[in-house]
Amino acid sequence: MDFAFDETTRDYHARLSDFLDRHVYPAEAAYAAHPRGDWRPPPVLAALRAEARARGLWNLFLPGEHGAGLTNLQYAPLAELTGRSPALAPAALNCAAPDTGNMELLAEFGTPAQRKEWLEPLLDGRIRSAFAMTEPDVASSDATNITTSIVRDGDEYVINGRKWFITGAMNPDCAILIVMGKTDPSAERHRQQSQILVPRDTPGVTIVRGMHTFGYDDGAHGGHAEIIFDGVRVPAENLIGAEGDGFAISQARLGPGRIHHCMRLIGMAERAIELMCRRVTSRVAFGRPLADQGVVQDWIAESRVRIEQLRLLVLKTAWLMDTVGNRGAHTEIQAIKIAAPSTVEWILDKAVQAHGAGGVSQDTPLAQLWVAARTLRLADGPDEVHRRSLARRELARWTS
Amino acid sequence: MDFAFDETTRDYHARLSDFLDRHVYPAEAAYAAHPRGDWRPPPVLAALRAEARARGLWNLFLPGEHGAGLTNLQYAPLAELTGRSPALAPAALNCAAPDTGNMELLAEFGTPAQRKEWLEPLLDGRIRSAFAMTEPDVASSDATNITTSIVRDGDEYVINGRKWFITGAMNPDCAILIVMGKTDPSAERHRQQSQILVPRDTPGVTIVRGMHTFGYDDGAHGGHAEIIFDGVRVPAENLIGAEGDGFAISQARLGPGRIHHCMRLIGMAERAIELMCRRVTSRVAFGRPLADQGVVQDWIAESRVRIEQLRLLVLKTAWLMDTVGNRGAHTEIQAIKIAAPSTVEWILDKAVQAHGAGGVSQDTPLAQLWVAARTLRLADGPDEVHRRSLARRELARWTS
Amino acid sequence: MDFAFDETTRDYHARLSDFLDRHVYPAEAAYAAHPRGDWRPPPVLAALRAEARARGLWNLFLPGEHGAGLTNLQYAPLAELTGRSPALAPAALNCAAPDTGNMELLAEFGTPAQRKEWLEPLLDGRIRSAFAMTEPDVASSDATNITTSIVRDGDEYVINGRKWFITGAMNPDCAILIVMGKTDPSAERHRQQSQILVPRDTPGVTIVRGMHTFGYDDGAHGGHAEIIFDGVRVPAENLIGAEGDGFAISQARLGPGRIHHCMRLIGMAERAIELMCRRVTSRVAFGRPLADQGVVQDWIAESRVRIEQLRLLVLKTAWLMDTVGNRGAHTEIQAIKIAAPSTVEWILDKAVQAHGAGGVSQDTPLAQLWVAARTLRLADGPDEVHRRSLARRELARWTS
Amino acid sequence: MDFAFDETTRDYHARLSDFLDRHVYPAEAAYAAHPRGDWRPPPVLAALRAEARARGLWNLFLPGEHGAGLTNLQYAPLAELTGRSPALAPAALNCAAPDTGNMELLAEFGTPAQRKEWLEPLLDGRIRSAFAMTEPDVASSDATNITTSIVRDGDEYVINGRKWFITGAMNPDCAILIVMGKTDPSAERHRQQSQILVPRDTPGVTIVRGMHTFGYDDGAHGGHAEIIFDGVRVPAENLIGAEGDGFAISQARLGPGRIHHCMRLIGMAERAIELMCRRVTSRVAFGRPLADQGVVQDWIAESRVRIEQLRLLVLKTAWLMDTVGNRGAHTEIQAIKIAAPSTVEWILDKAVQAHGAGGVSQDTPLAQLWVAARTLRLADGPDEVHRRSLARRELARWTS
Repeated sequence: MDFAFDETTRDYHARLSDFLDRHVYPAEAAYAAHPRGDWRPPPVLAALRAEARARGLWNLFLPGEHGAGLTNLQYAPLAELTGRSPALAPAALNCAAPDTGNMELLAEFGTPAQRKEWLEPLLDGRIRSAFAMTEPDVASSDATNITTSIVRDGDEYVINGRKWFITGAMNPDCAILIVMGKTDPSAERHRQQSQILVPRDTPGVTIVRGMHTFGYDDGAHGGHAEIIFDGVRVPAENLIGAEGDGFAISQARLGPGRIHHCMRLIGMAERAIELMCRRVTSRVAFGRPLADQGVVQDWIAESRVRIEQLRLLVLKTAWLMDTVGNRGAHTEIQAIKIAAPSTVEWILDKAVQAHGAGGVSQDTPLAQLWVAARTLRLADGPDEVHRRSLARRELARWTS
Repeated sequence: MDFAFDETTRDYHARLSDFLDRHVYPAEAAYAAHPRGDWRPPPVLAALRAEARARGLWNLFLPGEHGAGLTNLQYAPLAELTGRSPALAPAALNCAAPDTGNMELLAEFGTPAQRKEWLEPLLDGRIRSAFAMTEPDVASSDATNITTSIVRDGDEYVINGRKWFITGAMNPDCAILIVMGKTDPSAERHRQQSQILVPRDTPGVTIVRGMHTFGYDDGAHGGHAEIIFDGVRVPAENLIGAEGDGFAISQARLGPGRIHHCMRLIGMAERAIELMCRRVTSRVAFGRPLADQGVVQDWIAESRVRIEQLRLLVLKTAWLMDTVGNRGAHTEIQAIKIAAPSTVEWILDKAVQAHGAGGVSQDTPLAQLWVAARTLRLADGPDEVHRRSLARRELARWTS
Repeated sequence: MDFAFDETTRDYHARLSDFLDRHVYPAEAAYAAHPRGDWRPPPVLAALRAEARARGLWNLFLPGEHGAGLTNLQYAPLAELTGRSPALAPAALNCAAPDTGNMELLAEFGTPAQRKEWLEPLLDGRIRSAFAMTEPDVASSDATNITTSIVRDGDEYVINGRKWFITGAMNPDCAILIVMGKTDPSAERHRQQSQILVPRDTPGVTIVRGMHTFGYDDGAHGGHAEIIFDGVRVPAENLIGAEGDGFAISQARLGPGRIHHCMRLIGMAERAIELMCRRVTSRVAFGRPLADQGVVQDWIAESRVRIEQLRLLVLKTAWLMDTVGNRGAHTEIQAIKIAAPSTVEWILDKAVQAHGAGGVSQDTPLAQLWVAARTLRLADGPDEVHRRSLARRELARWTS
Repeated sequence: MDFAFDETTRDYHARLSDFLDRHVYPAEAAYAAHPRGDWRPPPVLAALRAEARARGLWNLFLPGEHGAGLTNLQYAPLAELTGRSPALAPAALNCAAPDTGNMELLAEFGTPAQRKEWLEPLLDGRIRSAFAMTEPDVASSDATNITTSIVRDGDEYVINGRKWFITGAMNPDCAILIVMGKTDPSAERHRQQSQILVPRDTPGVTIVRGMHTFGYDDGAHGGHAEIIFDGVRVPAENLIGAEGDGFAISQARLGPGRIHHCMRLIGMAERAIELMCRRVTSRVAFGRPLADQGVVQDWIAESRVRIEQLRLLVLKTAWLMDTVGNRGAHTEIQAIKIAAPSTVEWILDKAVQAHGAGGVSQDTPLAQLWVAARTLRLADGPDEVHRRSLARRELARWTS
């Protein structure tokens, strides 16, 4: 359980910090000016991606031969760094959700043909992707509720259903959707679901609208689409794995996805602490810098104390995933999924407050970071579902 | 200390409830579709205002001969009702901030000429107004920090400065700005400030941009403007009161403004509780309605328990303002300013969570209500300033 | 809904304040020296009771002809005052639990003979009493779980069972126990229970030990006894009401009992705020009084804001009980039972912290007050039970 | 930063677990029956100490030649285990505060003669000791406030002052007090203090009384004494280090002392989680085990998530102390001092609540564990002092 940076991590960390300082932070203002309802990536992103790639900061998230080959423990501090500028840095490095999960999924479960057609251009940064799981009408944290149907018809599958909050799906570069649906509603609970590749331009795929998160449309990320699948037909070979594998594939996808979110959340919190400290030392009220106020000091101390604990748990989780696998790290993945969003939301709230009116505005990244943290208390299943599940495991320890 | 509704309140309450049911709630969807960056009121508002006026639901906030003549205690349950649909109902009744505070101010401190020129059309709903106090560069919760200058030059005053978060200022109907600045920076701390009427179309007044609150631009309310005053000249008779009266006028304005916010916050919380209860009884997860989950029940119970307490303190404050005046109610006004936003923010957070992804989206009013509550932890001075002040009063009780 | 003090309340309030100042507070030190394991009332109590009675401050809790005849709303501010010194003042006024509930019960449900034998000496202060409901082996917040049996045998009832946390039962003055048990376990859920009068010296009644609350044995109150009832025989006429009435009687008893606790809790919080304010203005650390520290100011402000809200809800509940009855006030009684202990516990925690090591010691009343508040999160059913019940009522409002 | 158990730790951990299971837990009931006001160790302790020593579980806390020679990282999981039964296990292993800090101090700063006279019998378990720093009249978290005087008079020092909360001082085995006082009040702030060895039976040392913590007198630990030093004379060679070294010695003592408390707190929390889980799976209310209730599950999940984070921070701190020294670990020591007591207090509160009335009583260790955690929010300086200090360090990072 050694969490120290090794040589590889140290090297990437230094190079990534330099990239952030020179290229990413300076681009944030341009990003913040992204026009409403424009679903294209901000122009600056293409240049950032080229630069990152030239610097060898590309696909760092992906273990194995297809990516940078880092362990989770090596990647964690790098993902944390990208969390300091989460609107730009992950995408600049081709390490942004949901592409990362989709690439992992294709690398692990895709056929050679699927990998060639979709994984290669994704890894190469030529296209983007989306993952269509959440449905408006059912509690999607329980996959058995999914109502979208995927029905075999000769050499094709026919897909019908409605999805929403499909992040990135309105980005014009988004070429491929991975759709979760049911191939056999009569099968055993966790064998009903399948996943299938649906090119975004397939007839019958209709983008209805972009969903908002607390006023943001996240257009620069391709938004969060509501999509209707109406008699959408794709070749049978677009199925990922076999019929009924959908739930298992989905579970495999979630572990890394969750820890990546948590790693980035820590970076978001560090950015917030830095901004808060800089603000309170420079802002004067009632004759003294805000930093002299006991309540403000309390926020700062508590933020530091919380984030130090949280980071260590994320690192331990990464180490467990590397050593005993995602399954063996199940409880810890759940624990950080529970702890990270609410902890970081709390810190961001204090940083917002320390900034006064500016804190809720477009003049700092804090309000949007807060929304990202808040939304993660819901994404991939609300906290309450994870708490209940973790509690049952704990209870089982003492009653078996 | 009798908080029961009297006959007048009961009558207004019934009529206002009916107006909300028939006209306001049905108009919410049209309002929610208000286009980004459009600073005009949504078209539906004009019809709502006409209807409200026809029903005698107009200027309810204003005591005395100019308005409906209600006491604060009578107005409180009505303002609470408008808080259930805060984006539309207050404006429909000509009871929206900042117009309300500006009308009170003109009614109390305006000259006959000022009242004729600005108060009458405001009361009549022909124009709207804004209040320009907050500045980006200083902690404006401490009025002595204000840097905008108001300098006498012959028969005119010349105004220079920069303001931001000037709510409503981009509404094309906004005809008049009340600007807070300093006429004499060398005077005693609370005699340096003055307030002056500046028609929005005066040369030198430049709207720079709209400030956001989280991802909202609040365009339907005329946004929150950043404004530069560059050598703006207005006649000397535009000054409100005498030179140096600005701080005192501002204090007089704040009491009613704060309690109105708190009354509406309670209505927002009641709306949230209703939406939460309806949602959890209809939504099923893991085979049971969400309402069966202990954690969800805990949210609902705690919400009810908190809001009942809060409402009573707001009513007591209203009663004190009516009986011993705003000055005598100072501590209670501060107490509700501290308690209401954070309490209601907490309730809204739970209502959002109970709605899942839909809760952060444009499909319920909850996310925007949350932002309104959160922002009120900062507006009119951050909570921390009010807590400190209230603590000092409490400490003084035991040491004098 | 008029919460102002009337003439009667004002008069009692002044007289009770004077009694506290002159007699109760000065006696606290003697009380604090009460020896461990001594279950007799502290000697000072007899003098206090005589003095209180002489001043007409006696049985204030009891409405109707038997007591002072006050309404709940009139009694609330008086009970609050006694909460400032809860170990002495309520007992001094013959207004201490569980005697109060027992006297109410006998006044309402007792036969003339029962009232003559037990109510009269209780009202007269010649004896004390206890209420034996809670059992160690079952969740007693659900009365259907009670296992103690009360079996008719000729002209007698025979009682077998084990009770604990029977407050006051070891006080040598405690002459009578009201015991809750089951007369018919096969009856409908809420008709199985009965209540019966058991003189404490009846053969078969064995006091096993005193239960502690944190480190306190509350000996000065007669402790919290564990009691075995082994073949205890009492005359059949000792039954209160009819067989099967036990649950209903118990419910009738709980409403006033709960609100009395809540009234006193507010007095405890006021005492804590006073002690905290006095402490922080006199104690210096790092060169300044503690009162100058922002965090301490935050505690004080938050304490004041919370207690003002809580008091109003308690008053409203009292007013409802007076006007629509305990049944009509059910939700509000539940709300204050939920809100008061945790709110006051929070305030006491801060007062303890402000006192440093002295705060946890016997040198201030704060630690013991804290335990009283903490224990009330459990007594009469844990918070969680009341929250769930209140939530169900709220949910029913929106689904019927 | 490798936190895994090494071979040594694994071996000790297994042996210590076995010792706890076989000897310590079974002795808890006897300990709980310790009579009030009896300051002698419970009889069972001598047997436990003999057994522990025979098993080689002795002085594990002490690095270097005098003790077991473990690193902090090796000791941490062992101290955690002792925290599961904190009233018996640490003392059984001769690893209880304040002896541990006193032994470290003598090992590091004592002269050979001092070590021979006091350290040897302490290590050998023949005597016990106390550390007399806290004073009732001043904020002792700021050592510059200390008022006890230590004045040179010929070959002796004369000590005058009043101390309180001197843990263990009433244990008849307590032979030696280390007293903190001022030798030169006119010196530079941190050179005024000295520490001196005072045999407890020295004339002029008067034990006034035992201080309580929430009703407990902690008699089995020798209580928390209030002590008057009135013209107490000891030989000059009893001074530890040189005049003016007192503050520095005290700082050196605090680091290990604090982390030991934190390690044990984690064990206390683990015990609480185990008891809570066992309770809620066996206790039935309203027809279901408590474990089925969502709110209870929430407590369990949150407890697990918090304690996992906290443990990792304690381990990191231990590792830092081992690798960069106590000074280099200053911020982390402060962070765990802030985080551990309040986190564990929260968990204990939930475990108490899950046990109902039994949870606050002497029938489980929970209430007393809660008091231990609560008191540690004050001991060695209140949380607020440490938060402020940590905040200043954080602020300095961003402004230098």
